[in-house]
Amino acid sequence: MILSYSSTCTVEEVASSCNAVRFFQLYVFKRRDISAQIVQRAEKNGYKAIVLTVDAPRLGRREADIKNKMISPHLKNFEGLISTELDSDEGSNLEAFVRAVYDDSMCWEDVIGWLKSITNLPILVKGILTHEDARKAVKVGVAGIVVSNHGARQLDYTPATISVLEEVVQAVGGKVPVLFDGGIRRGTDVFKALALGAQAVLVGRPVIYGLAANGENGVRKVMKMLKDELELTMALSGCPSVKDITRSHVRTECERLRSQL
Amino acid sequence: MILSYSSTCTVEEVASSCNAVRFFQLYVFKRRDISAQIVQRAEKNGYKAIVLTVDAPRLGRREADIKNKMISPHLKNFEGLISTELDSDEGSNLEAFVRAVYDDSMCWEDVIGWLKSITNLPILVKGILTHEDARKAVKVGVAGIVVSNHGARQLDYTPATISVLEEVVQAVGGKVPVLFDGGIRRGTDVFKALALGAQAVLVGRPVIYGLAANGENGVRKVMKMLKDELELTMALSGCPSVKDITRSHVRTECERLRSQL
Amino acid sequence: MILSYSSTCTVEEVASSCNAVRFFQLYVFKRRDISAQIVQRAEKNGYKAIVLTVDAPRLGRREADIKNKMISPHLKNFEGLISTELDSDEGSNLEAFVRAVYDDSMCWEDVIGWLKSITNLPILVKGILTHEDARKAVKVGVAGIVVSNHGARQLDYTPATISVLEEVVQAVGGKVPVLFDGGIRRGTDVFKALALGAQAVLVGRPVIYGLAANGENGVRKVMKMLKDELELTMALSGCPSVKDITRSHVRTECERLRSQL
Amino acid sequence: MILSYSSTCTVEEVASSCNAVRFFQLYVFKRRDISAQIVQRAEKNGYKAIVLTVDAPRLGRREADIKNKMISPHLKNFEGLISTELDSDEGSNLEAFVRAVYDDSMCWEDVIGWLKSITNLPILVKGILTHEDARKAVKVGVAGIVVSNHGARQLDYTPATISVLEEVVQAVGGKVPVLFDGGIRRGTDVFKALALGAQAVLVGRPVIYGLAANGENGVRKVMKMLKDELELTMALSGCPSVKDITRSHVRTECERLRSQL
Repeated sequence: MILSYSSTCTVEEVASSCNAVRFFQLYVFKRRDISAQIVQRAEKNGYKAIVLTVDAPRLGRREADIKNKMISPHLKNFEGLISTELDSDEGSNLEAFVRAVYDDSMCWEDVIGWLKSITNLPILVKGILTHEDARKAVKVGVAGIVVSNHGARQLDYTPATISVLEEVVQAVGGKVPVLFDGGIRRGTDVFKALALGAQAVLVGRPVIYGLAANGENGVRKVMKMLKDELELTMALSGCPSVKDITRSHVRTECERLRSQL
Repeated sequence: MILSYSSTCTVEEVASSCNAVRFFQLYVFKRRDISAQIVQRAEKNGYKAIVLTVDAPRLGRREADIKNKMISPHLKNFEGLISTELDSDEGSNLEAFVRAVYDDSMCWEDVIGWLKSITNLPILVKGILTHEDARKAVKVGVAGIVVSNHGARQLDYTPATISVLEEVVQAVGGKVPVLFDGGIRRGTDVFKALALGAQAVLVGRPVIYGLAANGENGVRKVMKMLKDELELTMALSGCPSVKDITRSHVRTECERLRSQL
Repeated sequence: MILSYSSTCTVEEVASSCNAVRFFQLYVFKRRDISAQIVQRAEKNGYKAIVLTVDAPRLGRREADIKNKMISPHLKNFEGLISTELDSDEGSNLEAFVRAVYDDSMCWEDVIGWLKSITNLPILVKGILTHEDARKAVKVGVAGIVVSNHGARQLDYTPATISVLEEVVQAVGGKVPVLFDGGIRRGTDVFKALALGAQAVLVGRPVIYGLAANGENGVRKVMKMLKDELELTMALSGCPSVKDITRSHVRTECERLRSQL
Repeated sequence: MILSYSSTCTVEEVASSCNAVRFFQLYVFKRRDISAQIVQRAEKNGYKAIVLTVDAPRLGRREADIKNKMISPHLKNFEGLISTELDSDEGSNLEAFVRAVYDDSMCWEDVIGWLKSITNLPILVKGILTHEDARKAVKVGVAGIVVSNHGARQLDYTPATISVLEEVVQAVGGKVPVLFDGGIRRGTDVFKALALGAQAVLVGRPVIYGLAANGENGVRKVMKMLKDELELTMALSGCPSVKDITRSHVRTECERLRSQL
């Protein structure tokens, strides 16, 4: 699992109650001492990687949040360090918070280099959608790439992640793993992402929906559903193991078009 | 006609009341003695071919069946041999039945070889959707191929059979006949499948609808409608006989695209 | 104008009340003497061409007509020769009429040769949709081709005429004029057909709608509307005369696609 | 800003209350003395360019205007020179006005040459949609091109301007600036037009909507919204300045198709 920096439980609390392989998700803050501190707490508590979100130097114009008067959540991991109690004349105070706290001046070499200097954990970047950025990420030495469009909340007209996955996979050329985020709702979605070259698939909303509907048990049911559906899709597609899932098991617009010419 | 293994009349009853050319449809059961027995009964009663369904090593996740609490039908052909009275904590007990009874470990050479060893009837395989599987089927010595997606109930995102028919026909290259299943509702559908290379067309739901609406007479009306419509389509397309229906009588996306380049 | 053989006024009545250039539309009847008679009446009354409809050797399955219990119109031109008072157990008696009266055994050389032998009028064929048929028509010596799908009432899945116009124009290669029928509702439609190579455009339903709404005056208004709109479209497209309308004045899927490659 | 010739304030009034860079939009009238007079008034009052609308030698068939009985606005700039108080038997009198007042006989060399002879201001042409017209415009010496389809009110089936922008940009080849008009509603639209090669973007309806909703303040809000959205889109697309926006920042059908072949 990947724990969000804005989790309502601290890195320590999660570590002590969970045996799963855990990664820690991070933004870089203007106050780098705070970023450094949390990275080191994650490392000390057995988290296996840092997942740096790189698609939010500024917050997107989230009109739903503004309409709903969204309030930035209390940051349990940063008590006394970062307050989210900001006033804003917009409906939501999220944009004001991000503007106050996130570092929007960071650049590739700078931030990855600095993170490597303060931790031995592998650094993954989350939010890659193009071959250009994928190549840059590999060049500055990331340990993995997460194809993600931030739930499509950062920028209108952002492409669907499934539509750019293959472009990123080809640009990376196997140098580091490519993880896939976005739009996974059924086991067939997992199968498609794996067939298009993802090494792993991240699941967000289904878990939240399970949690909202039925607490811990709901999450278990959602995860079981996804696993069962993936396994059934594999069986019906003639794939005894995950490594038997190949590019030829799915047909994209690309194949459809090529087959017609 | 192709008689289903799960028919509510036995192979003998159907044989004694029907002069049509009859094929017999089969799954391979874990208990091969039962499969062997029914194949030999079919052969003895004048059935002309075995149609082996190969796209259901496991049952698809049929959510409509689960919602509707579908019950596996009583198997008239297997009295005392296979019971469908299974309990299941799902809405439908079909999945539990298939898991208990069908052999999901069979592979191409194994199952076709074994069937050939117990019967002189030609073996067709039903459920082919790709050129890869079509070539394998020809290689292991089937007598014919049925392009079918099992009514699209086995796996979500399965392609429409009409969209893969030509791929299969080309892969088979005339070595064995290719039959077409799925989506036939009007005579124009039959015409299209024949133009794309099918040697014959199978009709499922229209017959059932006719039966449900008006019994034996309803089936006759549906079959007459399909024949009349096919014949009219042929007349208006300048085809005096079925063999005059050619690939150039239909235009697929493929032609549309090529004509534009 | 093209007068239908089934007009409620005779060829003579129309000729005596109309100064327009008139063509006469014809089917070939089983009784060729009747066809010959009407062709000669048309010629004698100053009609300038025979337009032979070739897409109806049999009547299409017109389910709307059947539902609406359509009755074949009384044939004013054939009093005492052809009766349309047929009984039929279908809702419409049109199909029975066509089966009884039209010659469905005619073939290209036969019918065009025969027509040429009984009249000096030029023979156009109406109902061409493919390059194959266009070439055949030119080969047997027609004086012109009308691209038409019979209002799409003859056969489901027939292509839109605008989508095949260019294919026919290219096959004909300027040897005879190509006229366009189907779907003309506004002046922009006329412009498009001319740009794609039609030498003239036929208008059916708009005239009928005008007639139904406001009699002779309604027809005049509709024709004026179409002319005004065509003229405006030409002016706004930089075409001082009809011959200035070129292929590059319209953009089809073809251009869109080519421009992208 | 570009002031319309039909503005309800005179060129002088606007000049005296506005510090923005101002262009003046013009049609050529049958009475060239009136055109000349207004051009010279614009030049004298500090307007920086003349924008000649070239897609309206005649008024399009604007059926909405006819239904709504649109009345030509009073022309404040031409008191005593041009009256719009025309009677018309159509619902709208706009078409009659245009027919009476606009010069529909002008041609490229003639009108641009004449305008250059009466003013030192640069002449832009507005209403270009094709590479043919773009090349002609450059050849006759315009200082800039505005890609516009006149709000799609002049001719049905006119292409969306965004779909032809790149064709025009390529034809112009950097010889003069290409401005973009049509369909700009959000900052992302501005970004797209800039990425496709527009040097500047014109905004019509959003400003009118702002004005209607909240007067001068509404216009300010709309303009701020567009600027903020463009700036955010640039930040999230990695573009520190407008000149960093490149063709590879947007993906059109063209890229999608090429990437598939």
